[in-house]
Amino acid sequence: MGMESEKMTVNYPDGRRFLSASDHLQSNTKPHHRDSVVFGGRGMSLEETINASNDYYRLHQRAVIYKKPTPIQIVKVDYPQRSQAVIREAYFRQASTTDYNGVYRGYYLDFEAKETTNKASFPLKNFHQHQVNHFRNCLAQDGICFTIMRFTTLERYFLTPASLLIEYWGKQATGRKSIPLTTIQKTGYEIPAGFQPALNYLDAVDQLITTAKR
Amino acid sequence: MGMESEKMTVNYPDGRRFLSASDHLQSNTKPHHRDSVVFGGRGMSLEETINASNDYYRLHQRAVIYKKPTPIQIVKVDYPQRSQAVIREAYFRQASTTDYNGVYRGYYLDFEAKETTNKASFPLKNFHQHQVNHFRNCLAQDGICFTIMRFTTLERYFLTPASLLIEYWGKQATGRKSIPLTTIQKTGYEIPAGFQPALNYLDAVDQLITTAKR
Repeated sequence: MGMESEKMTVNYPDGRRFLSASDHLQSNTKPHHRDSVVFGGRGMSLEETINASNDYYRLHQRAVIYKKPTPIQIVKVDYPQRSQAVIREAYFRQASTTDYNGVYRGYYLDFEAKETTNKASFPLKNFHQHQVNHFRNCLAQDGICFTIMRFTTLERYFLTPASLLIEYWGKQATGRKSIPLTTIQKTGYEIPAGFQPALNYLDAVDQLITTAKR
Repeated sequence: MGMESEKMTVNYPDGRRFLSASDHLQSNTKPHHRDSVVFGGRGMSLEETINASNDYYRLHQRAVIYKKPTPIQIVKVDYPQRSQAVIREAYFRQASTTDYNGVYRGYYLDFEAKETTNKASFPLKNFHQHQVNHFRNCLAQDGICFTIMRFTTLERYFLTPASLLIEYWGKQATGRKSIPLTTIQKTGYEIPAGFQPALNYLDAVDQLITTAKR
C-alpha cells in the first residue's frame, strides 16, 4: 500500500497531539466522574484539563466556552445502507483562529492554550502567525484575549494577555525565540492548581478584565 | 460493496446541505472577486452569503465572526509517505452549539442562520434542541444571541432575537409548529438586500443591542 496506517495516537501537522475519537466526543459532553478526582489537571492533557473546566463552567452557569472543532476538508463520504454516513477521504485544514472562545459576563473571551517542558521560558514556536493575527483582530473589537501557558515540568499554569504574545512575536526578527518566565510572572496571572474545575482560569480572567480598564 | 459513494453533493444527517471541499476552504479565506458581483446574496447559499459577509466585516475591521467547523469524530488517519495526512474513517458529530459566533464592539455575538421556502411562517423544525439550550446559556452570560431567517421565495431576510425562538420553541407542546411572518416582522429586524457585504446584518445587530438596553 505504501501507507502507514495508525489509530488514535497521531499528531496534527503542527505537532499538536491528535486526541482519540473518545477524547473528541468527551470534549462536548457533560463532565465525567473522572473530572472530580483530578487535581490541577494532573494526568490529563492540557486540552482535556481545559475542556473539563469549560464543562464545569457551563454546568454551573459561570461561562459558555467551547473548543472549536478541528477544521476538516471533506472530499468523500460513504452512505452505508441503514447506518450513519462515513467520511472516507478528508484532510486537516489550517485553522484561521485560536482554539477557544465564548462568553463570560457579557465579555467575549478568546484564547489559545499551549504547554512547554522548558523551565525558564516559553518558546514562541508553540504559536502561529494566524493566531497572532486573530488576536490582533479580536483585540480591535474589544475582545478579552489571552493565552494559557502550562509549564509541565514546573506544574505551573499562567494566563497571559494576548498583547504579551503579540509583543514578543514581533521580537522574533531580532532573534528572540521565547518569552522569559520572569516576564510571564510579571505580566500574567498564575492559575493555582484546582480541584473543581481542574483549572479555574476565570479568576485570572477577572483580573485581566479589571486591568484592561474597559 | 453494499455502499453508495458520493462526492460533493450530500446532506448532513440534519438535512443541511453538505458543502464541497472548495466551499469549505472558501469560508475561511479572503473574499473572492465573486463576492463583489452578487447582490443580496442572490445565487449564493445562505451559508455562502453569511461567510462572504463575515469575510467582508473582518477585512474592513467591522467584526470578527466565523462559522465554526463541523464537528467530526476521527477514527483512522493514514500517512502517505511524503504527503499530507489523509483521514480515512470519520463520522459527523452532533454539534453542541450554534454555527456562528464572534466579537463586535466588545459584544459577544452568537447566531444560527436558517432558510425556508414558506411564505407565511418560519418552521421550527429548522432548529434543534441543542441550539435553543445554547442560546439560553449564552443569554444568561449577556451574549447577543439571534437567528438570521431567510424566506427564499420572498427574497427577504430577518434578524430575530433568540428570545423569540425560545418562546416559540416552548409553544411546540401546544401544537405550534412555526413562527408567523407577521410576528417575525414585528419582533425582528429586516435586513435589506445588500451589495458589499452581501448581507449587512450588523446594522440589525446594532438595533438589537440598543433594544436590549444593556
